[in-house]
Amino acid sequence: MPRRKTDSLYALILAGGTGTRLWPHSRRNRPKQLLPLISKRTMLQETVDRILPILPADHIFVVTNASFAAMARAQLPMVPRQNIIREPEGHGTAPCIGLGGLHIQKRDPDAVMLSLHADHFIARPADFRRVLRDAARVAREGYLVTLGIQPNQPETGYGYIQRGELVEQLGAQPVYRVAHFLEKPDEATALRFVASGEHYWNSGIFAWKLTTLWEEYARYQPKLFEQLQTIGKVLGTRREKTTLARVWGKIKNETIDVGIMEKSARVVTLPIDVGWSDVGSWATLLDLLPGDHARNVVVGAHLGVDTTSSLIYSPHRLIATIGLKDVVVVDTEDALLVCPKDRAQEVKQIVETLKRARKQKYV
Amino acid sequence: MPRRKTDSLYALILAGGTGTRLWPHSRRNRPKQLLPLISKRTMLQETVDRILPILPADHIFVVTNASFAAMARAQLPMVPRQNIIREPEGHGTAPCIGLGGLHIQKRDPDAVMLSLHADHFIARPADFRRVLRDAARVAREGYLVTLGIQPNQPETGYGYIQRGELVEQLGAQPVYRVAHFLEKPDEATALRFVASGEHYWNSGIFAWKLTTLWEEYARYQPKLFEQLQTIGKVLGTRREKTTLARVWGKIKNETIDVGIMEKSARVVTLPIDVGWSDVGSWATLLDLLPGDHARNVVVGAHLGVDTTSSLIYSPHRLIATIGLKDVVVVDTEDALLVCPKDRAQEVKQIVETLKRARKQKYV
Repeated sequence: MPRRKTDSLYALILAGGTGTRLWPHSRRNRPKQLLPLISKRTMLQETVDRILPILPADHIFVVTNASFAAMARAQLPMVPRQNIIREPEGHGTAPCIGLGGLHIQKRDPDAVMLSLHADHFIARPADFRRVLRDAARVAREGYLVTLGIQPNQPETGYGYIQRGELVEQLGAQPVYRVAHFLEKPDEATALRFVASGEHYWNSGIFAWKLTTLWEEYARYQPKLFEQLQTIGKVLGTRREKTTLARVWGKIKNETIDVGIMEKSARVVTLPIDVGWSDVGSWATLLDLLPGDHARNVVVGAHLGVDTTSSLIYSPHRLIATIGLKDVVVVDTEDALLVCPKDRAQEVKQIVETLKRARKQKYV
Repeated sequence: MPRRKTDSLYALILAGGTGTRLWPHSRRNRPKQLLPLISKRTMLQETVDRILPILPADHIFVVTNASFAAMARAQLPMVPRQNIIREPEGHGTAPCIGLGGLHIQKRDPDAVMLSLHADHFIARPADFRRVLRDAARVAREGYLVTLGIQPNQPETGYGYIQRGELVEQLGAQPVYRVAHFLEKPDEATALRFVASGEHYWNSGIFAWKLTTLWEEYARYQPKLFEQLQTIGKVLGTRREKTTLARVWGKIKNETIDVGIMEKSARVVTLPIDVGWSDVGSWATLLDLLPGDHARNVVVGAHLGVDTTSSLIYSPHRLIATIGLKDVVVVDTEDALLVCPKDRAQEVKQIVETLKRARKQKYV
């Protein structure tokens, strides 16, 4: 086994999403990852803070869409300007990760690259960093590594990974072949997955050598690979901007999961249990955060009479509640949400209705 | 029976209350009666609008505390400035009505005076005006008239009037002697009251000739009567302000109900059914106002998914709700309330807690 070389470790942070599931806090022009949610730092800042102990700031690259680039730069003064990459438009994670890979390759063709999302929550960051180091070590052996989250409930909102044979054991950390990538299951199937002990949530957190990644792109996405090569050749030249715009307009939508990971024979997974969440709803946030004596999660000023197990999110105003249980109350400058915790997913309907009604200022 | 003379009809509107039951909309410095609640007009304006068809604006007097006088004046441009009377401090309704009576007496010693509250809601104002005319007619005969509200539920939050013998019948409107004034009952007693058909809610809406009123003050509250006479003598002179301040500081707290009405032998009641409410809580408001197709009462912008029978009060912000039933949501610039309708009375606890915590800006 080769000696660990963290000096060639790089990270790409995907920060282009425009989620609506945390409406009214997150908006079209103010997505979750660029907002403070759990701490005073934004989720993007938390993501960077979390990995700074294992790699230098100039090894961190962020890919985001053009309209968020200025915000991302302002939030990350320690990351060099040129490491904030503007994706002209979203075409799925395969082109996006490819574009990030080109920039990292320009710095270090032998790089091992971590691919992370800017809007994930990790309760135990030290454990997570240990896993990332292990993942980098496995990646150096020529694998495409995906982190598999130990499921603690039969979640129907995530894709699953079914493990295959044990490839190796790094101390307490097993490494498995991936037998199958599985679509979001129905509830019965999810229950079966969790009971099996062989299934993990697909986190979308990856590690690979760039050389391995390009081989797989060339094999399974030859057209995209060729397009990326065209961009790569002019990176840093006067032609970069026009070439990127021209080529990007022709790129086909594809995810890294479907386009590469499900096809490749070199995929392994490291099961992890680090308190991971993609913070997919206000209900998730209520589950994640430690509550007060009444099990309420409170951000801002709250005065509760007989109020328990509720999320009170109000940075600007006093919220007074009487007789609430398992309720989510989220206040912002111009809009407010009240709903039972178990219906927090239906926020999407609110946003859809606002879009249809052309109430753009609230979307 | 003397012919009806509406030219000697005057109204005194009591507008000094500082209710907290409609917090966070109503505050110490922004009481219910000076706020728009049900329409775009404030409750004080509604109260004046309601009686303008039966008497000229310069027959309307308003008594309020010094700090609210400017607001009251601004809201009632049709009422002469000098008709807005400043009460130095609250000592109960007996001194307050006495002070108003002095001002009306100065205009017309033979006045028939209506005494109204600035924060009552009346669903059927035309019916109410008919009753006021009848009440004025009965008052001219030398009675102290109190309006008795036909109870539609065993309310424990109001005092009750038990009727005695029938005194007269004005068309469809009976006039009864008052047998007893009864304190706020417990629930069993309230049920019995409603079942009896002989009990009415004590509305605190009165009519009397000033000459009758002074006779009863002299008989049952001689000390207060003497103090009022002292003030009355200097009304409109240079000494008014200092005399008022000096005398008022010595006045004993007394309500008109306990101090006069319960003692007098000249009290009659006109039972009425005009959709009256003192709007004692947000729940009352929800019951009073016509709801939309989902039985929601909405002031402001609301987007509801599966939301029914709820009060959404938000003049400034969009409120989105999912899965609410019988819930009250009240938003203001700096504070927000969420509570089940059946616990709306507990708003008082919120205000008490804020006071104890010295959060004066929210009180």
